[in-house]
Order: sequence, then structure tokens, then C-alpha cells
Amino acid sequence: MTTPKRTAQATPEALHRIFTLAEKPHSTLGRIEKEISQNLIGFLNNHIVANKNALTDIEQDFVCPRIPEQPEFVSDHMHHLLDKLVSQSVHTASPTFIGHMTSALPAFILPLSKLMVGLNQNLVKVETSKAFTPLERQVVGMMHNLVYQKDERFYQDWMHSAEHSLGAFCSGGTVANITALWVARNNLFKANGNFQGISRTGLFSALQHYGYQGLVILVSERGHYSLRKSADILGIGQDSVIAIETDENNKINCQKLQLKCEELQKQNIKVLAIVGIAGTTETGNVDPLDKMADIAKQYDCYFHVDAAWGGATLLSNKHRHILAGIDRADSVTIDAHKQMYVPMGVGMVLFKDPSLVSDIAHHAEYILRKGSKDLGSHTLEGSRSGVAMLVYSSLHIISRPGYEMLINQAIEKAEYFASIIHLHDDFELITKPELCLLTYRYAPKLIQDLLLQVDDKQQSKINTILGELTQFIQKRQRENGHSFVSRTRIQVARYNGEKVIVFRVVLANPLTSRANLRDILAEQSLLAQESEVFLPKLFDLVKDN
Amino acid sequence: MTTPKRTAQATPEALHRIFTLAEKPHSTLGRIEKEISQNLIGFLNNHIVANKNALTDIEQDFVCPRIPEQPEFVSDHMHHLLDKLVSQSVHTASPTFIGHMTSALPAFILPLSKLMVGLNQNLVKVETSKAFTPLERQVVGMMHNLVYQKDERFYQDWMHSAEHSLGAFCSGGTVANITALWVARNNLFKANGNFQGISRTGLFSALQHYGYQGLVILVSERGHYSLRKSADILGIGQDSVIAIETDENNKINCQKLQLKCEELQKQNIKVLAIVGIAGTTETGNVDPLDKMADIAKQYDCYFHVDAAWGGATLLSNKHRHILAGIDRADSVTIDAHKQMYVPMGVGMVLFKDPSLVSDIAHHAEYILRKGSKDLGSHTLEGSRSGVAMLVYSSLHIISRPGYEMLINQAIEKAEYFASIIHLHDDFELITKPELCLLTYRYAPKLIQDLLLQVDDKQQSKINTILGELTQFIQKRQRENGHSFVSRTRIQVARYNGEKVIVFRVVLANPLTSRANLRDILAEQSLLAQESEVFLPKLFDLVKDN
Repeated sequence: MTTPKRTAQATPEALHRIFTLAEKPHSTLGRIEKEISQNLIGFLNNHIVANKNALTDIEQDFVCPRIPEQPEFVSDHMHHLLDKLVSQSVHTASPTFIGHMTSALPAFILPLSKLMVGLNQNLVKVETSKAFTPLERQVVGMMHNLVYQKDERFYQDWMHSAEHSLGAFCSGGTVANITALWVARNNLFKANGNFQGISRTGLFSALQHYGYQGLVILVSERGHYSLRKSADILGIGQDSVIAIETDENNKINCQKLQLKCEELQKQNIKVLAIVGIAGTTETGNVDPLDKMADIAKQYDCYFHVDAAWGGATLLSNKHRHILAGIDRADSVTIDAHKQMYVPMGVGMVLFKDPSLVSDIAHHAEYILRKGSKDLGSHTLEGSRSGVAMLVYSSLHIISRPGYEMLINQAIEKAEYFASIIHLHDDFELITKPELCLLTYRYAPKLIQDLLLQVDDKQQSKINTILGELTQFIQKRQRENGHSFVSRTRIQVARYNGEKVIVFRVVLANPLTSRANLRDILAEQSLLAQESEVFLPKLFDLVKDN
Repeated sequence: MTTPKRTAQATPEALHRIFTLAEKPHSTLGRIEKEISQNLIGFLNNHIVANKNALTDIEQDFVCPRIPEQPEFVSDHMHHLLDKLVSQSVHTASPTFIGHMTSALPAFILPLSKLMVGLNQNLVKVETSKAFTPLERQVVGMMHNLVYQKDERFYQDWMHSAEHSLGAFCSGGTVANITALWVARNNLFKANGNFQGISRTGLFSALQHYGYQGLVILVSERGHYSLRKSADILGIGQDSVIAIETDENNKINCQKLQLKCEELQKQNIKVLAIVGIAGTTETGNVDPLDKMADIAKQYDCYFHVDAAWGGATLLSNKHRHILAGIDRADSVTIDAHKQMYVPMGVGMVLFKDPSLVSDIAHHAEYILRKGSKDLGSHTLEGSRSGVAMLVYSSLHIISRPGYEMLINQAIEKAEYFASIIHLHDDFELITKPELCLLTYRYAPKLIQDLLLQVDDKQQSKINTILGELTQFIQKRQRENGHSFVSRTRIQVARYNGEKVIVFRVVLANPLTSRANLRDILAEQSLLAQESEVFLPKLFDLVKDN
């Protein structure tokens, strides 16, 4: 005889228990939580399997489109989650997962996040957030101060002013960029005479009223795709994002930018915004922001800096000079979930002029009444969580000098990695790290030498094979599950601007050691030998030449 | 002699500890966490003070615009947070906080949220989320099924298809509405002939190419303010959101809607979308969606339903008929952080046609490559957390019948509250609950009778004083801190459409008891007596008449 499997019941009593009785410490979820609390990295190491299944196999566990008619016990469900979801998730905190802007998190973040969820504030209005509203305004003020360094008086005047805003929290850099360009657009097409402003009457009448032949956004060809997305959403169109060429260091060519501005002015096409990139996603380089600010000033146009990734560098007194000129931007995007080490989903946009946001102000009867301090009247999003608390606490617990250490260490680590790649006979450094990001590829010394001797056509042929090899190694390494680097395709000046496939690494995780980096290279070298196609092809080419 | 206060140090070792050593169970944060884990409601009751300070006083604790140069010990910082932030936050889980769409959360949500934060996935791409990507697609599929009830085959074909999407998770209803109208706009202005589509060339050329004289969105006058915000962002302009009159039950008047469509067609003004409201924010009423779908079909325009709040009602077999016709909508917004009992920051938009999102698809080299299953290629936001897991688990643990109980109980509770308001001599029910939301005001029987006898001018005078009294009671009750109802101004048909100030309550919290509701009325009655101005004024008017 077997004991019949106990079944959960959807009864009023069971539901009441769900809302009132805590998970028992010895329950499955209680034990999981304890494990996470005591040793998160250990938990992730134990529960995420290294050898992943293919995505199409994993999908088989997530095919049912019906909402269950039968409730599950929490513990049964947790076993299911561990088995099907957690085991097949990505170990983003791993020191050897250096392919994206992910990292281990400070240990205090976990219990603090739980407090945040438990408080479940809604920052859209004071009535559902109370002290969280001034807290968020203070954090925005601190970040504003980090960028713009205004005097105390400035913050006394504006930080808590109902009609003003120094910036906004949002779910990430994309929403921050959309918000900034929305502000730029509405500010450019303000109410004027009998024109009631773009906010009320839309883009068509705005362009007609102001008599521009068109509207464009200028950004380097390394700009993040969210800028094209912003242009689409804001009704300007992706083609209006004009990509300006970069120099050999992946920084915008200011001469070309200037020429483009000149040309557009003659055509009566208005530059809505010049966008500087402080930390390109693919190479980690920072545009010459100060020069860009000069050009923006000369042509009287809005200057936005997308520092989603690199903005945290301002916390380092040693390196903040890399972003010199950022304080001249009208707005700046910074993601806290990148190098500020808070969990996914925390972006910010900051505005130099606290009254800029009046161009996007919204009000409603039941909330966001005029004159209220409700944050929702100046944000793209409506209901939002109290995640500003995590940034607030991190700034206090880690402090600026602590962040400086993290930033400096990351850059040093990237420089170290660049140096060992450079010294290694099998690898070619493609972009040097300016921040903690670099790109490289597998390319045996012999092949690198060959590339310098052959004609363009041969060069291109070799680069294609090297690209295939890089792709092969990257995939194989990911599948092996010990480490992960990402890959992308970038134009390389020394190969006549040809687009080549490269490994891309971001060294933001403080737990990544130099030994980890040496191991990653060693593994890649070995994997290259497993390629039965590409290496022989390359060496045949060497023989032929 | 006093022991010098220990000071935290920003050293590499201290930082390493922050990233590697868990909070000790007996540390301050450890103890807070234990308290939250064992008894969240108790923790909130103990730590949030009932008698709040004024916001301007609280602001004094959040004025420093400098990022600290000195790190803090976690435990010191936690004392500070408890003292300055938590104590002055809002007890949104309280059974007597019935003014907004907040509630207690199921107990399993807290440890589960911690797991989510610990895993720190980024859903923008498979490389940083792996199994979370199919999981999110499944949850979107389940919600799609809840709304559209397509057959199994449909979900087999589209749920995991790289080029398709049944919807998207986003930070909330506002982003969901923007996404839906963005899709509607881009779909309307598709590439055509030598026109490359609005997504590429923008709104100006789109209107020129298609030759419309204008573009509007039609929604009832009870529509959420996020729709005007969406119109602003999308370049259409807030004035293009045309508010259609509602009937005495706050539902859109379909005859007026039809007439407006007719009129616009004659003027060659294109209706971008008709938007139905399934649960107005202020009164909780649902538009006649089926009739609206007929009209949308007749005029060949996009039909969106904003069911941010009421969408969860579909989980109740008993009440889902209230939303009949929702399956005819091209897109639907539902917030999971409202009546689906997950924490703040979880919205969804669902699309009837899985290929609709191709009009907003975005790609980039290093991620979101064409043909990949990266979720980020079809969402407004970029990096996003794995919060879909919380919805997934809630659907499994609570199950549809469990949700049905929660929804049904909430509506019954609202009906009960309406009945005791109706029977009470001092209160006037303004809008009856269709879902779990109602409005009422303080108005002694004598005054209610008087209102029926006097002329319009007198009526308006009385309503103004009643409004001031309602406002007085609402503020005083909030300040007392035992309970909270919100207030708004709505047009009331029986007073010739005059706007009157009312109490607004949402009864979504399963822990709110009938006794709580009786106490809230009793407190309001008492508070009315404390008004030394308004009640005497009103009774003078009775005497005069």
C-alpha cells in the first residue's frame, strides 16, 4: 500500500494561512532561504548546473499555457523551481561569468531587498510611500551632486521642491534614455504663441509650428540600441539617429560631429540632441564629453550623456577625469544595477536644470495633484517600488571611497587582463580597456603576422576564419559551463574598419581573480585546438603565403 | 572614560567581506530579517509609527546631497533606516489601509523575492537568464490564455517562437499602455511602397504618407492619466486623447463613441486606438468591451483594453463575464502588482496576434541578434529582472480557484461595505462597487434630503461644503494613522454631473475584515463631529430651507 500523495486545497482557510503564516524555517522554502542567507555563492554553485541543456530542451518544461486549476504546496513548488528553473538559470554572480555587466552583489543587499519587498511601497505618490519619497529625492540629489557638483544651496533649493526634480529613478537605462530624450523633445517644442506645445498637440504640429525640415539625434556609431528605440517611441524615427564615425579608440570623431551639425543647420534640420557615450557597451570607451559639450553649445542643442554603464566611474577620484565634461550635459543616464552593485532593475536619469521636467509633468485628480510632492508627476513610469533604498544603503555602507576601490580594482584587473592577452602568443587584443571592458580574439601569432603582410582581400578572408574560430570557442566555452565571455562584432581600424568577431569581457565582479582570467585564456587556447576546421584552414593559409 | 565609537573602514578586505560574508543571524540586519520572516505584519505594526510626522519634517532627515566619504557598518545603518525610513513609511499591508490598490502579500513572496534577487538574472537576453526566458514566455502565455482562450495548438506554435511574442512583462501598467499604443501606432503606419514605416522615419512622414489630417485615441473620460502620458511620449499629443462621456455607471457611452468615430472619419482623422477601461481607477467600473469591440471593428481601428487593475477578475469564473469582449482586444494591460498579489513593479501587456510585436522589434550586434529568443528584442525596456518567477509561482501555489476566491471575496466585501454605507444615516454611497472599489462621502441624511429639494445653485453650494468636510475627515483620519481611505473628485450624474469630492476605497486586501470597515465608518462619523466649521454650516442651511 502506498500513501496517497497529499493534495493542496484552495480553501478560504488555506488562503488565509498563505497571507498570514510565515514559511516555517524547516520548510523547503525556509531551508532554501537559510542557505541563500548563509552562503549565496555556495547556493548558486550547488544549484545551478554547469553543463546546461539546450534552450529548446529547457522550453519543454515551460509549455503549458493553462493557469493551474489545482494549488501546489509551497514546498512541492520549490522543489520544482530548484529542479527546472534555478538549475537552468545563469550564474551571473560567478567570478568567471565575465561576459556581461553582471556581478556578485554585496551580502547586505539580500536581506535589504527582502525588507523592501515587505514594505512594498509605491513611489508614484506620497500617500503610498511617505518617507521613501524624500529618500528617493535625496538619492537623486546625491547622484546629481556626483555628476554636477552644484553647491549646497542648490540642493537646499531644489531637492525637495514639488515643482522641480533633479532626476528620476526608473527600471533601467533604456527608460532613462527615453525619459531624457522625451524631456529634450518637449523642451525644444515648448508652447509658443498660439502653439500649445508638443506635449499637448504632438510632433506633427510641433514641426510645422517651428518650421524645421526634420529632427535628428547625433550619437557615435557605438551608441546603445536603446537610442534608436527611443527615437522610434518618441515619433522621431530610428533613421533620425545619425551615427557619427568614431576614431581608432571608439570615441566619437568631433570634427565629423561638427561638420554634420554645420550641414544640418544649412538644411534647416534641427538637432534634437547630441548624445555622448560614457562607456560604450561594446568597448567601454568614453566620448570626449567636454568637446561635445562645446559643439552642443555652439549649435544650441540639448546634450545628453548615456553613462548607463560608465557613470559609476565618477565615484573614483582617480578615474573620474575620464568623464570630464559630463557636468555640462543637460541630462545623464546612470544604471545602478551595473557598477553600483544593486540588483537588476534600477536606472536613473539626472537633469542639470531642475525645472526641465516641467515639460513632461502630468497630473490627475486622485493622485499627483498640482503642488503635491508626488514623484509620479515627473516620471515616465507610474507605480514603482522603493528600490531607491538599496542605492541609499549602498552609498552609505560602501561609501564613495569604497566604490572608488571597486572601480579602480576593476580597471586594474582589465589592464592586467589586457597585458596577459597581449603577451600571449595565441591572442590578439582588439580594444584596450579604458574602463573595465575590453575585447580580444583568438589569433595565433603566426596569423597575426600574416595579417600584416597580405592584401585586403586575404586579410578579410583570414578575419572571417578567425571570426568563426572565435565564435566556436565562445560557444564551446559557454556550453562547458566553467566560464562565460560574450562576443560581438566590431569595426577595427587597423583592418581598414572591417567588422570582426571578438570576445568581449566586462570585469565588474570584485570576486573575479587574476587566476580566473589566466584560466579563461588557458581554456580558450585548449578549445581552439578542438576546432578541427578553423585552425587547419588558417595554417594552410600561412603555408600558402 | 567612554569607549571611542568604532568606525567602519573602506579597505579592500572590508569590501571583500561585504561581497563574500553573509550577514550574521544575530546582527541587526540578521535580526530584522528574522523578524520579517517570522511575522511580517507584526514587524510592520511594530516599526511603522501610527502618528506620522509631516512630510516637511521627514524631509529634514534626507537633505544631505553628498555621497558619504565614510562607510557605515551595516548594523549602524540598519538602526538608522529603522528610525528614519521604516518608521515613517506607509503600512500598505495594513487591513485598514484601503485607500489604494495595495494589499498584504502571500508569505511565500518574501523568501521567493530573495531568491530572485540572489539569482539576479537579466531577462533582456537568454545569455543572462537562460531558463527564465522560457519561464517568462510561459507566464505570458498563461495570461494570454486567460484573456484570449486560444487552443493548445496556438500556444504550441507561438509561445516560444523567436520572431513572435504573446506579450511582455514590464515595470507597470504605464509602460504596458505605452507599449500597446506604440505597437498600435507602428502597425498603423507600417512600411508601404516607398514609405519605410514610422519606426524608421517617424510620425511626421507617416502622417504625410498616409494622408491623415490627424490621429486620435478614444477613451472614456474615466481613462487613466497614463494614456495621456502615452500619447505625449509617442508624439501624438495629449489633446489627441479624446474623452468620451460616460453613463451614470461610469462606463463609456457607446452611442457617443460611435458618433465620434463617424465624425472623425468624415474629417479624415484616423482613430489610432479605441481604449476600453476594465476597472476605472476612480470608480472600478468596466466599459462595455464587447460593444466597443464592435465599434472598433466597424471603423477598422486598434482596440486596446487597459485592465491594469480589473484584469485579475478574469481569474474568477463567477465574475469574468464583467469583462466580456476583452478577448476581442488587440492588446490588454494587466498589472500583477495589483490584484495578483505580487510586489510592486510588475505589469504586463498581452497581444492577441503574436506577430504584432514585429513592428517594434529591435536588434543589436552583441545581443538580440535576429533569430535569437532574447526577450529584449520585443520590449520597451532593456535590462529587466526575473520577476516573472513571482507570478509563475503565485499562479502555481495559489492556482486559479484560489485567485477566484480572493477576487470573489473582495467583491463581496465591497458589496457589504456599500450596504452598510447605504444603511448608515451619515453617509452617502456615490458609486456602487462593480469590482472591489467604491466611492462615498459623509453626508447626514438631513442634508441628503435637502439636496433633493433645492435648486442647482443651492445644491452646488451644499456639495462644496460636503466636499470640504470629506476632505477634512480624510486628512484627519490619515493623520490619526489607524486607517486610510483616499479621496478624489468625480462627476456625479444625480447632481447634474457636478464634480464632488468623495472617499475612495479599494478592498483588495484579503486581511481587511468587515469589522475593519465598520470601524472606519465609525471613526469617520466621529471625525465629522470634530469639524467645527462644516457641519454647523450645513445645518444652518437645513434651517434656512
